[in-house]
Amino acid sequence: MSYAKNSTIQSLTQALTKSERERAVTEAFKNTSSPKVMTIADLGCSSGPNALVAVSDTIDAVESVCKELNQKPLPEIHIMLNDLPRNDFNELIGSFEDFKKSHPCFISVAPGSFYGRLFPTQTMHFVHSSSCLHWLSQVPLELQNGLNKGNISISKTSPPFVLEAYTKQFERDFSQFLKCRAEEMIHDGCMVFTLVARKDEDPSVESIYLQWELLAQALVDMASQGIVETEKIDSFNLPFYAPTSKEVKNAIKREGSFAIKSIRMFDVGWGEARDHACEHCEVEENATTAQRTVKSMRAASESLLVSHFGAEIMDELLERYSALMEGYFSKYPDGGLTNICAFVQRIK
Amino acid sequence: MSYAKNSTIQSLTQALTKSERERAVTEAFKNTSSPKVMTIADLGCSSGPNALVAVSDTIDAVESVCKELNQKPLPEIHIMLNDLPRNDFNELIGSFEDFKKSHPCFISVAPGSFYGRLFPTQTMHFVHSSSCLHWLSQVPLELQNGLNKGNISISKTSPPFVLEAYTKQFERDFSQFLKCRAEEMIHDGCMVFTLVARKDEDPSVESIYLQWELLAQALVDMASQGIVETEKIDSFNLPFYAPTSKEVKNAIKREGSFAIKSIRMFDVGWGEARDHACEHCEVEENATTAQRTVKSMRAASESLLVSHFGAEIMDELLERYSALMEGYFSKYPDGGLTNICAFVQRIK
Repeated sequence: MSYAKNSTIQSLTQALTKSERERAVTEAFKNTSSPKVMTIADLGCSSGPNALVAVSDTIDAVESVCKELNQKPLPEIHIMLNDLPRNDFNELIGSFEDFKKSHPCFISVAPGSFYGRLFPTQTMHFVHSSSCLHWLSQVPLELQNGLNKGNISISKTSPPFVLEAYTKQFERDFSQFLKCRAEEMIHDGCMVFTLVARKDEDPSVESIYLQWELLAQALVDMASQGIVETEKIDSFNLPFYAPTSKEVKNAIKREGSFAIKSIRMFDVGWGEARDHACEHCEVEENATTAQRTVKSMRAASESLLVSHFGAEIMDELLERYSALMEGYFSKYPDGGLTNICAFVQRIK
Repeated sequence: MSYAKNSTIQSLTQALTKSERERAVTEAFKNTSSPKVMTIADLGCSSGPNALVAVSDTIDAVESVCKELNQKPLPEIHIMLNDLPRNDFNELIGSFEDFKKSHPCFISVAPGSFYGRLFPTQTMHFVHSSSCLHWLSQVPLELQNGLNKGNISISKTSPPFVLEAYTKQFERDFSQFLKCRAEEMIHDGCMVFTLVARKDEDPSVESIYLQWELLAQALVDMASQGIVETEKIDSFNLPFYAPTSKEVKNAIKREGSFAIKSIRMFDVGWGEARDHACEHCEVEENATTAQRTVKSMRAASESLLVSHFGAEIMDELLERYSALMEGYFSKYPDGGLTNICAFVQRIK
């Protein structure tokens, strides 16, 4: 159940941020005096059909800007793909040979957490990350004592310090992310990242948090029937945070290494994502929006759920979650995700 | 059955070439004016316990030369590990986190054939390859029509053009290897490679070829009992060639991009390899030399054998091969492999 393999919404998010990537690659190339070797990183690449889409756009963009500038020969392109060590790199690597036939480049894989250093100092021209930075490096330590009872994320019944703890964890993680990339990127290099965000100061009214709340609801229902231990739910929280646009902007300014070239929020509906995916990848056309959403949410959270609750509860949990999500989509047929896409440049 | 996991002889070969690696890394560092980032490639790294041994030596050598030159801070070290895409990279990547605790470095993985380009132009300071270059990019095309009947490699019953075809294939592959590395390495960068070689002009008298001949013998015996089709054997040849020292030297000179700093041949006995392995890794201490040799030969050739003959014959084939190898080692208790280790420098 890799995320990239199953998330139709990730595929659409990538399509909707193509123009930022194109502009950023073009600027990175022009600003860094037309390098002979252009090094490009994709952080949180996952595996499966979506994994090389952004990289493909990026290579096309390098070719376009060279054509525009009448620059020959084309620079050599070195793609560095990153994800956590538990990612299925064997599957990812299996797709390289075909990919290189249509996209001449060198491809390497750099496993590790992007909240730490991944690459040598001042070696990256363009860095990209899609649909990953809302995953924190860890659950905030303050929540590891069962103080967010009956919840697995920020919900309307969470005590106020839960939001505060998540906010602080995001600030720490995100500023660490920026600091590491600042060290790795060359002067004037560019970065584009997209992550799930929220419009409201209060997370509990956002659709993504409502959807996690339904997952918590399914677990609580199972606990009331003795299928899951209540203590297990109380000690589980998702390392997930959807920041506001203001939080992202402030963090970038506070860290200080990057200038914001553009930043925007956009919504991705699950229905839209489905239409996009039908056109661009294989999806089960007859699945309901709820079924497809559950599949995506499952791909994103299954490894966390399994390691905490055990694999044996998964089938029933997903069945109950699907039922609750059917109800959700009958109430909010356009429910989806809010994303933020930022294009920044390394300035000092 | 990964090679690095099972080959005690590979482990000893790495130990016996440690001094070349140390000298080469030291020279590479000094000659390339103490780079801030030192990029080091290991080609044909495989997976398993042997996979990071050479890299570990290399990092130690960089630290030593910096200490000697009183150079601070240490350069950042970027390790690029290469093997064919079918290698188990997931297993390899799983060992990085522990490795980095004792060896501060960045590690990436660059899958692909080292008979083609793997890295951008002029980016490598030191390149290493151990126990791989005797594997050709393919079986010589001339042999693909069953003209080496009853054999799977060069043997005393092979027609003379078999040796000629293998020799030409090695020359093509090895010069391609040198050409690609010459493009990837920076001026004055260094390379050390070790491969199985032969002392005699006539391959069929060398122990490694005698050992492949016994594998062919086991197959032929099975064919005589109708377990394997004779045509299957006639159409199978190993993409393996053990060159002479002269062939290696001449190829390096002919290609012209590298100066030979040192080149030497050395023997590795299977008995010795066993003693080394008992000390350095886990091996079955009670296994006979033949059993351990078969295990190594199996690790090296199994994927080729399975894809040609099918997995179902493997157990019986290995049993018969073991019996023949027991006979071989009772005659030649010191039988082992001859290796060549070359230390070369990029000169233009």
